[in-house]
Amino acid sequence: MKLLLLNYRAFLSTPVALTSVRRAFSAAAAPFSASKWEGGVAMVQGASRGIGLEFVKQLLEKNEKGHVIATCRNPNGAMGLLDLKNKFPERLDILQLDLTIESSIEATTMSIREKYGSLNLLINASGILSIPNVLQPETTLNKVEKSSLMLAYEVNAVGPILIIRHMWPLLKAGGGSGTQRDVAVVANLSARVGSIGDNRLGGWHSYRSSKAALNQLTKTVSVEFARKKDPIICILLHPGTVDTDLSRPFQRNVPEGKLFTKEFSVQKLLNIINNAKSHDNGKFFAWDGQEIPW
Amino acid sequence: MKLLLLNYRAFLSTPVALTSVRRAFSAAAAPFSASKWEGGVAMVQGASRGIGLEFVKQLLEKNEKGHVIATCRNPNGAMGLLDLKNKFPERLDILQLDLTIESSIEATTMSIREKYGSLNLLINASGILSIPNVLQPETTLNKVEKSSLMLAYEVNAVGPILIIRHMWPLLKAGGGSGTQRDVAVVANLSARVGSIGDNRLGGWHSYRSSKAALNQLTKTVSVEFARKKDPIICILLHPGTVDTDLSRPFQRNVPEGKLFTKEFSVQKLLNIINNAKSHDNGKFFAWDGQEIPW
Repeated sequence: MKLLLLNYRAFLSTPVALTSVRRAFSAAAAPFSASKWEGGVAMVQGASRGIGLEFVKQLLEKNEKGHVIATCRNPNGAMGLLDLKNKFPERLDILQLDLTIESSIEATTMSIREKYGSLNLLINASGILSIPNVLQPETTLNKVEKSSLMLAYEVNAVGPILIIRHMWPLLKAGGGSGTQRDVAVVANLSARVGSIGDNRLGGWHSYRSSKAALNQLTKTVSVEFARKKDPIICILLHPGTVDTDLSRPFQRNVPEGKLFTKEFSVQKLLNIINNAKSHDNGKFFAWDGQEIPW
Repeated sequence: MKLLLLNYRAFLSTPVALTSVRRAFSAAAAPFSASKWEGGVAMVQGASRGIGLEFVKQLLEKNEKGHVIATCRNPNGAMGLLDLKNKFPERLDILQLDLTIESSIEATTMSIREKYGSLNLLINASGILSIPNVLQPETTLNKVEKSSLMLAYEVNAVGPILIIRHMWPLLKAGGGSGTQRDVAVVANLSARVGSIGDNRLGGWHSYRSSKAALNQLTKTVSVEFARKKDPIICILLHPGTVDTDLSRPFQRNVPEGKLFTKEFSVQKLLNIINNAKSHDNGKFFAWDGQEIPW
């Protein structure tokens, strides 16, 4: 595995890799002008399935214009995205991105800069809760393992922040240009169980604390964007309990009517995003627009 | 470094190591009775300097009875602890503990179980904010590095929780026995800058988010202790800005009268700990007893 990562990193830094990344976008005109992208440019990270895929779908289907960049670890296996690419060949780009590998984030950033030169929306939709034989949500302190905690932090907190760091210049260039908003939006998918104040059940130590770390990182970034008067806001979103692969093993105890479809949840979240204003910067919203305590 | 760790792990699992750990405590009678420790048994983790060392000092000097176990990575270099050991040879034990190495936590747990069989107080006082050439508090998102974030999580959030996990049976056996309290106390040193709601300045991404993760983990653990009716509570403490090695590079902007001595801060925190009741479980207190928002 380590060898694979090293090889991947070495590959990305070769001139061949750079050329092939550029070639993939050779059909597009040279960019660096934000206003040319009518309808805006949105990036959805973690877009191969679940809520991320649904964001891509609704961004394409519910708007007549606007470009979407969908990223995931394995584009070739992302059937849902490939279907959408067939329907929206001009408006959708699918890029490979592994948020645990910084050179992968850098390569994606370069691709987007080359083709679009700006971003108006970044949705960090990736997240891990359980992986069979690797990561299980803890039912008791006795099951808390260092490896699980560190993996959750790496994927749920560190990855999204590194992506924001790299996309920052593109978001600054984009602002609200081409959209109905005044500002670019960074929307990080968090979860109500990440709320410390709302933690009444305990358990899920890795997931809960990784989302609390993400919440703090997002708030911290939002303070800097505001201070620098950048045309960007950061918000945190709780999608509700949504019927996806992530929640499937844990749906038993969800009260009737509280297990949402992806379609419903994403529609609600896009409503929050589309109507976001400067004063929403640094806030943590549930799907229904209610603020969630930290 | 990896080789060193591996050797260290291998060493710990040898019969020689186990024997030598046991020999270190051979003077003490066989334990497993909580009530025999009049004044209680307290463990201070991260005790070689700063606030941790001051906790050890005051626990020894301000009480006529009670045992203190001070742990740190390098006992041989811990001059402050060695001085106290000379003054309180019967009441102070100094044990080696590296909270990033789980086998080290296990060895320490075994030592304490062998000699005392119970704990009434666990203070997690270790923490990192800056290490020259390794970790610098970030002044901007552009300086956020994966390695810094992961290191902060490992030391400031994961380590303390693993220690609680391993000490849990000892704390349960101890409860408030031998002390003026009804309950055993786990006191994790947090910081106001870990508060998401109180984050108005931004920056310090690694430190802030690691403390937010620690806050969430502590809250999560407190919920389980309460549900199981264990005689243990967990609290989080903000010591104020204290004149220690940790804060020294950042003391410039501290308003007059707001830079506390270790003596003052620890006296205040011990007051909170000594008077802690069941209903304080899961709360986040500043040095003056005020609750801090999450």
